[in-house]
Amino acid sequence: MFGRTLFPARALCSGLFKTPLRTLATRPALSIGGIYPPIATPFTDKEEVDYGKLHENLQKYCSFPFSGFVVQGSNGEYAYLTREERLEVVRRVRQAVPKEKLIMAGSGCESTQATIEMTVEMARSGADVVLVVTPSYYRGKMTSSALVHHYTKVADHSPVPVVLYSVPANTGLDLPVDAVVTLSQHPNIIGLKDSGGDITRIGLIIHKTKHLGFQVLSGSAGFLLAGYSVGAVGGVCALANVLGAQVCELEKLCLNGRWQEAKELQHRLIEPNSAVTRKFGIPGLKQAMDWFGFNGGKCRSPLLPLTEQEIKELRHIFTVNGWLSS
Amino acid sequence: MFGRTLFPARALCSGLFKTPLRTLATRPALSIGGIYPPIATPFTDKEEVDYGKLHENLQKYCSFPFSGFVVQGSNGEYAYLTREERLEVVRRVRQAVPKEKLIMAGSGCESTQATIEMTVEMARSGADVVLVVTPSYYRGKMTSSALVHHYTKVADHSPVPVVLYSVPANTGLDLPVDAVVTLSQHPNIIGLKDSGGDITRIGLIIHKTKHLGFQVLSGSAGFLLAGYSVGAVGGVCALANVLGAQVCELEKLCLNGRWQEAKELQHRLIEPNSAVTRKFGIPGLKQAMDWFGFNGGKCRSPLLPLTEQEIKELRHIFTVNGWLSS
Amino acid sequence: MFGRTLFPARALCSGLFKTPLRTLATRPALSIGGIYPPIATPFTDKEEVDYGKLHENLQKYCSFPFSGFVVQGSNGEYAYLTREERLEVVRRVRQAVPKEKLIMAGSGCESTQATIEMTVEMARSGADVVLVVTPSYYRGKMTSSALVHHYTKVADHSPVPVVLYSVPANTGLDLPVDAVVTLSQHPNIIGLKDSGGDITRIGLIIHKTKHLGFQVLSGSAGFLLAGYSVGAVGGVCALANVLGAQVCELEKLCLNGRWQEAKELQHRLIEPNSAVTRKFGIPGLKQAMDWFGFNGGKCRSPLLPLTEQEIKELRHIFTVNGWLSS
Amino acid sequence: MFGRTLFPARALCSGLFKTPLRTLATRPALSIGGIYPPIATPFTDKEEVDYGKLHENLQKYCSFPFSGFVVQGSNGEYAYLTREERLEVVRRVRQAVPKEKLIMAGSGCESTQATIEMTVEMARSGADVVLVVTPSYYRGKMTSSALVHHYTKVADHSPVPVVLYSVPANTGLDLPVDAVVTLSQHPNIIGLKDSGGDITRIGLIIHKTKHLGFQVLSGSAGFLLAGYSVGAVGGVCALANVLGAQVCELEKLCLNGRWQEAKELQHRLIEPNSAVTRKFGIPGLKQAMDWFGFNGGKCRSPLLPLTEQEIKELRHIFTVNGWLSS
Repeated sequence: MFGRTLFPARALCSGLFKTPLRTLATRPALSIGGIYPPIATPFTDKEEVDYGKLHENLQKYCSFPFSGFVVQGSNGEYAYLTREERLEVVRRVRQAVPKEKLIMAGSGCESTQATIEMTVEMARSGADVVLVVTPSYYRGKMTSSALVHHYTKVADHSPVPVVLYSVPANTGLDLPVDAVVTLSQHPNIIGLKDSGGDITRIGLIIHKTKHLGFQVLSGSAGFLLAGYSVGAVGGVCALANVLGAQVCELEKLCLNGRWQEAKELQHRLIEPNSAVTRKFGIPGLKQAMDWFGFNGGKCRSPLLPLTEQEIKELRHIFTVNGWLSS
Repeated sequence: MFGRTLFPARALCSGLFKTPLRTLATRPALSIGGIYPPIATPFTDKEEVDYGKLHENLQKYCSFPFSGFVVQGSNGEYAYLTREERLEVVRRVRQAVPKEKLIMAGSGCESTQATIEMTVEMARSGADVVLVVTPSYYRGKMTSSALVHHYTKVADHSPVPVVLYSVPANTGLDLPVDAVVTLSQHPNIIGLKDSGGDITRIGLIIHKTKHLGFQVLSGSAGFLLAGYSVGAVGGVCALANVLGAQVCELEKLCLNGRWQEAKELQHRLIEPNSAVTRKFGIPGLKQAMDWFGFNGGKCRSPLLPLTEQEIKELRHIFTVNGWLSS
Repeated sequence: MFGRTLFPARALCSGLFKTPLRTLATRPALSIGGIYPPIATPFTDKEEVDYGKLHENLQKYCSFPFSGFVVQGSNGEYAYLTREERLEVVRRVRQAVPKEKLIMAGSGCESTQATIEMTVEMARSGADVVLVVTPSYYRGKMTSSALVHHYTKVADHSPVPVVLYSVPANTGLDLPVDAVVTLSQHPNIIGLKDSGGDITRIGLIIHKTKHLGFQVLSGSAGFLLAGYSVGAVGGVCALANVLGAQVCELEKLCLNGRWQEAKELQHRLIEPNSAVTRKFGIPGLKQAMDWFGFNGGKCRSPLLPLTEQEIKELRHIFTVNGWLSS
Repeated sequence: MFGRTLFPARALCSGLFKTPLRTLATRPALSIGGIYPPIATPFTDKEEVDYGKLHENLQKYCSFPFSGFVVQGSNGEYAYLTREERLEVVRRVRQAVPKEKLIMAGSGCESTQATIEMTVEMARSGADVVLVVTPSYYRGKMTSSALVHHYTKVADHSPVPVVLYSVPANTGLDLPVDAVVTLSQHPNIIGLKDSGGDITRIGLIIHKTKHLGFQVLSGSAGFLLAGYSVGAVGGVCALANVLGAQVCELEKLCLNGRWQEAKELQHRLIEPNSAVTRKFGIPGLKQAMDWFGFNGGKCRSPLLPLTEQEIKELRHIFTVNGWLSS
């Protein structure tokens, strides 16, 4: 599961796209199955990236059976990093973790051109795969057609495989199913991270793309079990920054068909997961990281730290689910 | 699974509510596990209820291993029936089907008083359980607190067990998790039909109520497998009006832990299910029923029949998923 | 403004509809300009309609220059009244107020047939005009086409003129502009009450229908001035139940082109208006009515009374805007 | 109206903020009344900024009585420009237009720090005022409190006055009224561009901030008249890129109290305005600019050009409203 195996079916469809895919036509697709924490970016008191603390986190994370790391997903506060910081963080992560850990780096920008440039730079900086969020500022015009054009151009120019990224809570936009199905035929687009959590949609996408070896990752620990039940190959889970062993344990139970135990564990992860995502956001995630021995700390402004009351509530959620003593 | 067993845990919590529950305190809760079609209401050309055609449908449905029937869920066009029609349909269904088939009748109205009256009448007309949709017209004021009051009063006065019903696509309102958790402690509220499809929410509700024997039903065939994976006990599935055997087969695969086969079958049901619900609504459901040998026919106005183009598209969806030949 | 004048342009378009309009073809349209309170329904302690208190309110309201009364708009808790109560309230209002006061009665139901029947009964009970809310339970299928069919049938059968009613806060549905434009050509559909508050949309509807004498009423005091500025002929304003003289004064200022004074008055009405609608709903409206000498009282369940804290906040809003002393 | 006059009231409130406002305490606020086109950015065939065509547009625009120009509002495709391009466009506009034309430059970024840096650079590049859009990627945590902190820091460090910018269609976020009211007390925050179009909200904001000389601009020509009616001081109108004279004429009619004529003109501008904003977006705006003698052209990818059918529909809208012959 954690190695990088071939999906021969994908090699067959490279003729579907007109743009010559010089570097990719003969390249077998990568397996992206498994669990990935979308790592947080620690900052110093002056809101500068704290590479030392980042390194410490990665050292600890390497003891868990993660498939790799998502660098600059939404939880990495990528929207608050400069272009140079985004690349430097990827470089540092690449240096800090073993080669067999896959680096999936967020390279999405609003314009197609900027996304292509960032994608190429991310690959140069050590990314094995790029994770490309939907552009969304002009969401009223981000039709299926516009998004298919965008991703096709990006994938045509990317030196590494592309994973689509749909995160409606942040973008206000769900990458339409028909666009995903069309894009799944591109030989350099190997999967989707779906953070919307609509399990019916996720099942449908898998149904319509699995013959091409297209791989879907659940974008949250809240529906990780349900995702596996309908055919997802893994998950990118903010909660894995905090409860990495437990999220990997849930994966293992699902892969081994131990659904009853999986259900019990999944149940206890839902509330903590919602707490570090929807409810308290990245400030909540970083607070919980601190409690579990990782470097969380402050967020960049305008994200505010939690209030005392929020910290209490967050702690209570971890406590009643049995992950912290009160 | 299909019988009616005891949930002894539920007997313990009757002290939580102040209102004396004369008829219920010693009454064991009903199992509502299994598959239920929310039956459609056939009409004559003059838009009158066609009880003959309804009877024919029920005769055919009785050959499937359904646990029972939901009468006047949203798919029954209950919003378009008069009070007397709503009751008469329940009476006819009760007469037409064997006693071991559970009748779950929709009794929700906007006001608490009207809901109580309809609930009592439904029980008199043969309902084993009432399914009570959230009142929603003044949704801005339908807070957790208001909904807890409403359902508590209804359950206090209901001669039969109550199942909560959350269907945000129709009501614009999701019954809040905290309200469900509070209401799950009422001895006469035995479960929830959740049609929203947010599997994270469904898992959380099950997690927080299972110690009380509270039972959750998936409100759609689109996430039936995922529902079972997180602990739902069955489903109320519009698609069961059309593909009853297949939906029951999916249930069986899930209950027997044959998840791989379940996944394959689930995948093929998603699009047909979406087609007869979200995409084409009740007119789509009734059209598909006609194709599969049931009496569908026209809807009451203002629901329009499908256009030629829509019928084509609907047929295509059933065809590409292997349920109809083209 | 308050009389009933002719809109000769409307007589010309009766040929557009195929259904014979026996009773209406030669009937000149009614002017519905002016201010209408959508009256609240007082209840006794046992939640029964309190006709005595209703009568008292109407006596007081008759001292204001209202054009008439909306009976069973959303603020009348019509969704919580039985069919018979709805009709009886209209009868009582008709008896209580002078003939020159126009009675606009809400007759919308979910099905077309039920709406027609209620419309006919409302007319018999004394309604001069019916106000027909969009059916909305199956809102996914309430397309322009379905709504045009619905309203056309209702208008064909209505003995009195029909006013369309779009109130997305309650129905989750905005009657589409193109449907309004089509329906404005029906000789028995004379206007629209628009409670959505999108002033661009309101301006556009007026622009596209004014050649037919179609009349638009603002559905709230919050945008009454803006409504007049783009061509609305009046307003149905919950706040007029509380501050009737002031809302009529605002109308007068607008009609007389005293926009500067109108602006000052409008500004002071926005927050109180929001407080008795969006923010605190009908319980807020009734509380404020009590303060200003009208019979408000309790709502029917499941609407809850305001909490102490909410009452304080409501009072504060009326105080800072200069309508109550603290 | 078009000059830059003093708002002495604003000088009084500089004591409210702890951060010393060295450069601003004694600086009188600027009047931002009047009409501003949010200028489009022309591109070459290779999607590079076409400064020559931009210059030509500006030359033509200078014949209209605009108060100034918004550079890099949403219609300027600022989200698709690099940092350097954003600054260079501002420099070029500053050089091309007379000094009395006010340059309002969009300087919003996601992080507070990046916004401050861009703000300072914009001022250096010639901006008289900065227009700061709400950060929105982590919108779930962009509470009133977070936004007040963000804008306060930006305004503390900005060498030029700040205008708040709320554009929910693009950001999925409406700057809350209470945040606007708090921020209106900052001596360096002089106004708000509100593109949401909720006229009740706009009236309320004006009511609660006018004693401080806070200035509100309507963010669209669709509700320009209504905006003036409730006290807005001008508008930033995409349509002014196409029908500049007409939008300025509408302003003049409003300022001179000729409301009847204003209404007639406003009516004819609503549909063309919606067409070049909501309906067809920037590609529609640029297409219409081409028809009216300005340089529109293509957008940057992923924005797609209009289809033939869309172009027809756009032309029809301008034609039926009397702005183009068919």
